[in-house]
Amino acid sequence: MNSTGNTTTLAGPNERYERGLAVLRQVAGPEQSTVLDGFAEIAPDLTRFVVEFGYGDVYARPGLTLRERQLATVAGLAALGNAAPQLRFHLAGALNVGCSRREIVETLIHVSLYAGFPAALNGLAAAREVFEAYPDTASEEAEVAAEGPDAAETTADRHRRGLTALTEIDGHAGEQVIASLRDIAPDLGRYVIEFAFGDIYSRTGLDLRTRELATVAMCTALGTVAPQLAVHIHGLLNVGGTEEEVVETITQMVGYAGFPAALNGIGVARTVFAERAAGQASTASATES
Amino acid sequence: MNSTGNTTTLAGPNERYERGLAVLRQVAGPEQSTVLDGFAEIAPDLTRFVVEFGYGDVYARPGLTLRERQLATVAGLAALGNAAPQLRFHLAGALNVGCSRREIVETLIHVSLYAGFPAALNGLAAAREVFEAYPDTASEEAEVAAEGPDAAETTADRHRRGLTALTEIDGHAGEQVIASLRDIAPDLGRYVIEFAFGDIYSRTGLDLRTRELATVAMCTALGTVAPQLAVHIHGLLNVGGTEEEVVETITQMVGYAGFPAALNGIGVARTVFAERAAGQASTASATES
Amino acid sequence: MNSTGNTTTLAGPNERYERGLAVLRQVAGPEQSTVLDGFAEIAPDLTRFVVEFGYGDVYARPGLTLRERQLATVAGLAALGNAAPQLRFHLAGALNVGCSRREIVETLIHVSLYAGFPAALNGLAAAREVFEAYPDTASEEAEVAAEGPDAAETTADRHRRGLTALTEIDGHAGEQVIASLRDIAPDLGRYVIEFAFGDIYSRTGLDLRTRELATVAMCTALGTVAPQLAVHIHGLLNVGGTEEEVVETITQMVGYAGFPAALNGIGVARTVFAERAAGQASTASATES
Repeated sequence: MNSTGNTTTLAGPNERYERGLAVLRQVAGPEQSTVLDGFAEIAPDLTRFVVEFGYGDVYARPGLTLRERQLATVAGLAALGNAAPQLRFHLAGALNVGCSRREIVETLIHVSLYAGFPAALNGLAAAREVFEAYPDTASEEAEVAAEGPDAAETTADRHRRGLTALTEIDGHAGEQVIASLRDIAPDLGRYVIEFAFGDIYSRTGLDLRTRELATVAMCTALGTVAPQLAVHIHGLLNVGGTEEEVVETITQMVGYAGFPAALNGIGVARTVFAERAAGQASTASATES
Repeated sequence: MNSTGNTTTLAGPNERYERGLAVLRQVAGPEQSTVLDGFAEIAPDLTRFVVEFGYGDVYARPGLTLRERQLATVAGLAALGNAAPQLRFHLAGALNVGCSRREIVETLIHVSLYAGFPAALNGLAAAREVFEAYPDTASEEAEVAAEGPDAAETTADRHRRGLTALTEIDGHAGEQVIASLRDIAPDLGRYVIEFAFGDIYSRTGLDLRTRELATVAMCTALGTVAPQLAVHIHGLLNVGGTEEEVVETITQMVGYAGFPAALNGIGVARTVFAERAAGQASTASATES
Repeated sequence: MNSTGNTTTLAGPNERYERGLAVLRQVAGPEQSTVLDGFAEIAPDLTRFVVEFGYGDVYARPGLTLRERQLATVAGLAALGNAAPQLRFHLAGALNVGCSRREIVETLIHVSLYAGFPAALNGLAAAREVFEAYPDTASEEAEVAAEGPDAAETTADRHRRGLTALTEIDGHAGEQVIASLRDIAPDLGRYVIEFAFGDIYSRTGLDLRTRELATVAMCTALGTVAPQLAVHIHGLLNVGGTEEEVVETITQMVGYAGFPAALNGIGVARTVFAERAAGQASTASATES
């Protein structure tokens, strides 16, 4: 099975299962124990479907690395906040496929913007448990170090930095959000600039492209925030992501938030891709004339 | 109280309470211990409201059997994923009103399509606990048996079976979903056909009408997937369900996901019913002319 | 930092931190232990952000009392149902800033309308634990007393009382909801009147303005119920709330449900404010002519 949409490939269920099992083993790590243990008796077919479909069809796809798929999954599960065993499994999975502790922690801090502080804090509590149980904790500990506050920094500094980040990432779409708040809730607009973009998006430890991958994953999984999903699909494309990566990130959520969430996410992506194609066409046309 | 909308019935609160208690006892089973135990001291009125309104007004309604109400409730609570004590209670309740273990397991496998694998797996973990604590486990154990993979089956076989199921269930609406994905995420369209309809909807152990009842319940409870709720209201009607059953399934979610979720679900149902009435009118008109 | 939208204030991070810490101490109570304990090692910056942004920027704002912010937060977290540690912290916080047990219990009973009985019951289970651990339980115990059923009350009585409350609170918007259900699900319309407004909204122990504050908080946090959020922003304004209170209640949810939820809530508020401004303009114009 590949990403060409070819439906006549002769890959039988065993091939999908074997491919899925190989990916699952990378995520589950050397101990091979998974969240699937214990389901063999009550629902053996569901276990098989997770391996065949979840890992063999979806995880094994090209277009995103396993590290990116794990960070997107951690972000999506932490944002949903209702799947603690799976979140723990994928936090360990993120370590197993090579994500650093710092990247994981930054991803969870980033979750606070889209699903609130409780989702971020509960995700971090799970991460702390996973990190403690994981070998070689000590050697990497420095990675989790804080950036710390800059005591001399003013709110004006935060505003300036946030506005720069907002413009770089979300461009026109982001500015429109702020402008639309001016008459009714100007402080909320300021918080978007100063806190969301000045404090969080501007942090080091996770590059902007990965932040936007995580954001697209979360907004798809939550299913409640279509306008923001559109803004951040633009954002991912603005900071170097590709349309394939957008589609892959949304598709990765099928197994964690269900088909409707992914289908509706793709619907938003279609609109954004069309907007950008129309914009480039008109730019090209303007340049030619 | 009946479903005629008559508001002048003289049924006082005690009659509603008695009727609710009779239903609650069927769901709670012979041990009579319920999730309501322990709330009498802190919020006695809420306990009363659950009995009067939740069981006396809603559960006691005609239009769905208690078995159907329990499977819809299990699907809705498993999809929401944030009400573990109530999910356990209603898993036992499903057994108490006569659902088989196989039907319950199939309902939870079905949940994976609409709320992801974590929701399905956590629901099954709860089911396993409930089944173990329930008398006569052994005698029914065979019921939970897997259908198992067919080693000779190709992806083309799955595609063919899925397309047949999709067309039977969701008709034109389902085909449109697949067509709309062709330009942007064709593989996601394939997964809908091969996995959702080929692997899951085509399973035995739960008839299509009950699968669609569970789907309408989940989509109503989640509140994030109006387009899919519309498709599956059509689906339920396509596989033999009635408009009354659609309304009852949505109304059943009032107590589990709140009034707004149910009201918005009814709004979607109204649109679907009108579409079908218009379609039949135009068909009739075409036949007459 | 104030609510004027002035972005050039020179308040540095330390000032925001100090202001946030002062508010957090009021919420956390004399023992000073918070849900943030234990995060200092893994994500010290997130802890700082919660204090600076969550408490220093948002909680410290004027426009709502700390008691109102706590009840709105309890309602929002209970409705989401996926943040148990934070819900417990803010239930204790509500007591610490002066909410009575009765107000807290009524708020949680009110949650049942917007997020279902499981959300209300799980919130009450957490409240029971918090109340038991809290000093001076005995002296306030009478406060939690039930209103109890009126055995002579008929459903017609409940209908009459509910209709009066619905008209007072939601006015024209509420009546439209009921009218729209008449053709398709008249009983659901009756339940809105009899149960939601007759049984719950008409309870004493929590004034209507606070009920609508909690409702706006819940509908914002859930993010799935924009039509009902609009109805209840009208409702809050109809029972004496101000536009500032609407904006503050929605802004209070930033830290609990994320920026998109708050931004989308503000979008709904803008529409409602414009509708009311247009309505008053046309009334004024009609009066003048």
